[in-house]
Amino acid sequence: MKAPDFNDVKKAAKRISPHAHNTPVLQSAWFNRQTGGNLYFKCENFQKVGAFKFRGACNAILNLPEEEGIKGIVTHSSGNHAQAVALASKMAGYPATIVMPENAPKVKVNAVREYGADIVFCESTIDSREETAHQVIQKTGATFIHPYNHPDVIAGQGTCAMELLKEFPDLDMILAPVGGGGLISGTLIAAKAIRPGITVVGAEPKRADDAWRSLKSGKIEPVLRTDTVADGLRTSLGTLTYSIIQDHIDNIVTVPEESIIRDMRNVWERMKIIIEPSCAVPVSAIMDGNVDVEGKKVGVIITGGNVDLDELPWQS
Amino acid sequence: MKAPDFNDVKKAAKRISPHAHNTPVLQSAWFNRQTGGNLYFKCENFQKVGAFKFRGACNAILNLPEEEGIKGIVTHSSGNHAQAVALASKMAGYPATIVMPENAPKVKVNAVREYGADIVFCESTIDSREETAHQVIQKTGATFIHPYNHPDVIAGQGTCAMELLKEFPDLDMILAPVGGGGLISGTLIAAKAIRPGITVVGAEPKRADDAWRSLKSGKIEPVLRTDTVADGLRTSLGTLTYSIIQDHIDNIVTVPEESIIRDMRNVWERMKIIIEPSCAVPVSAIMDGNVDVEGKKVGVIITGGNVDLDELPWQS
Repeated sequence: MKAPDFNDVKKAAKRISPHAHNTPVLQSAWFNRQTGGNLYFKCENFQKVGAFKFRGACNAILNLPEEEGIKGIVTHSSGNHAQAVALASKMAGYPATIVMPENAPKVKVNAVREYGADIVFCESTIDSREETAHQVIQKTGATFIHPYNHPDVIAGQGTCAMELLKEFPDLDMILAPVGGGGLISGTLIAAKAIRPGITVVGAEPKRADDAWRSLKSGKIEPVLRTDTVADGLRTSLGTLTYSIIQDHIDNIVTVPEESIIRDMRNVWERMKIIIEPSCAVPVSAIMDGNVDVEGKKVGVIITGGNVDLDELPWQS
Repeated sequence: MKAPDFNDVKKAAKRISPHAHNTPVLQSAWFNRQTGGNLYFKCENFQKVGAFKFRGACNAILNLPEEEGIKGIVTHSSGNHAQAVALASKMAGYPATIVMPENAPKVKVNAVREYGADIVFCESTIDSREETAHQVIQKTGATFIHPYNHPDVIAGQGTCAMELLKEFPDLDMILAPVGGGGLISGTLIAAKAIRPGITVVGAEPKRADDAWRSLKSGKIEPVLRTDTVADGLRTSLGTLTYSIIQDHIDNIVTVPEESIIRDMRNVWERMKIIIEPSCAVPVSAIMDGNVDVEGKKVGVIITGGNVDLDELPWQS
């Protein structure tokens, strides 16, 4: 697998533009006062399926040769990637099969079903997921779309930073959360090509600091625990995302759970938008003073807004 | 008191434009599918102080002669109008006193304090509020800014529909909730002047259907109970707002509590924005089929986003 370059991001932007939203960028006087910076929140919670994941899935699926696509698309996920693959497949007119653990939240299962995908349930282990997806591929010849370790997915995610820099070309810095690394990899490829001097910082929960540890040790370190409130960031880096991050990232910072919950709530209360816990991670990196934004123009990628409104982290 | 006309709304727009946000208009594919209409949500939850109330308060305060303003501004409110008066006074450089009931939620008291206003506590009755405000006026010569029965406040609220119609000039209809009637009055004055054929519909909770009953009986009927979840709509019409509504409104529709809670949650989940229960009232009027929007372009004014995140209505 070859890493995508900026040309791939530009092609992705062209490919997905009839389907994906050019999401709004919001500012907040309160956050600017608190941090001393000038923050630009790129709101992917307003993206289709409520998350940036639609960009990558849409690009990967639309870039398939039709003779492959009609055999079907498959992935395993219980999160935003599942919905993204389901909707993008539907738009492309390809059948989609999503492998989900049998204990997946009903709201996520229903959302995938709403987009018209088939669901195959499996046990709640990574082995069972992969085995079940493999069986679907064996039977149908469907194409597997990895949630992040895939050049077209990474190029698709890069379109977000590309849009942000088109609207605000003089940003000094961009922050994004790091889970499997697809978003930060795409952001690095786009941002460093468009504006070579820009600083790109990845933010992780301390409880899922695999990217930080991987950069330190020089090899992919797995996530050690899966109990961070930032449920979108519980995955480890892939080979492709690790190598892109290693080559280009300026810094990785980590934040504690309390900060994530506090700043998720701050964004809800001050900006009146619904964000997932994962989105609060870069916000906390700034609010906790781990990143110096004083007097700087800083883009923050708000990754998604799919939250269970019956279980809010500040209420548990 | 004379009702404002469209010229007053235009003057208000000019007066407040350096201070108020031109709020974004959002659309939702899901709500369009559900209703068969083409809905344009004018998002005053993103307005300063998190509510449209800033427009009216700002216009009224900036329109005061300076020799009056420096004697101070006073109002009684435990809601969004209190914050609006506090912030607008601060911007104008005038001292503000907000009379609040001693049982007002701490979060609201703190918000007013954050904007630098003095707070005078009183008993939680309307008599005590008015008496206390009167004492402040007697002592300081401060000017009282009524939350809705005030020509400059109504003209200020009208700037919201004016902005909406500037961006989307071919709307067939606008819906707004009705509490004291300031917003719907301003909306009527602006919308009917800009686009005479447009339909303007007010929406109320069934539990606070005073505007509906007032139009039927031909005189101001008071709100009979104060237990609707739509806490911004528990007030009765004023003389001025009643007469504007009576002259111009096309229809008033009422919705039950269950619909309000359901659609507040639908907006949070589908649109990823935080709205107050009051905002859901016109949305429910459409979702429940009380207003026919099939094939129509319909503006819906989302009035505010100040919600206690520890007490969400679907959790009680």
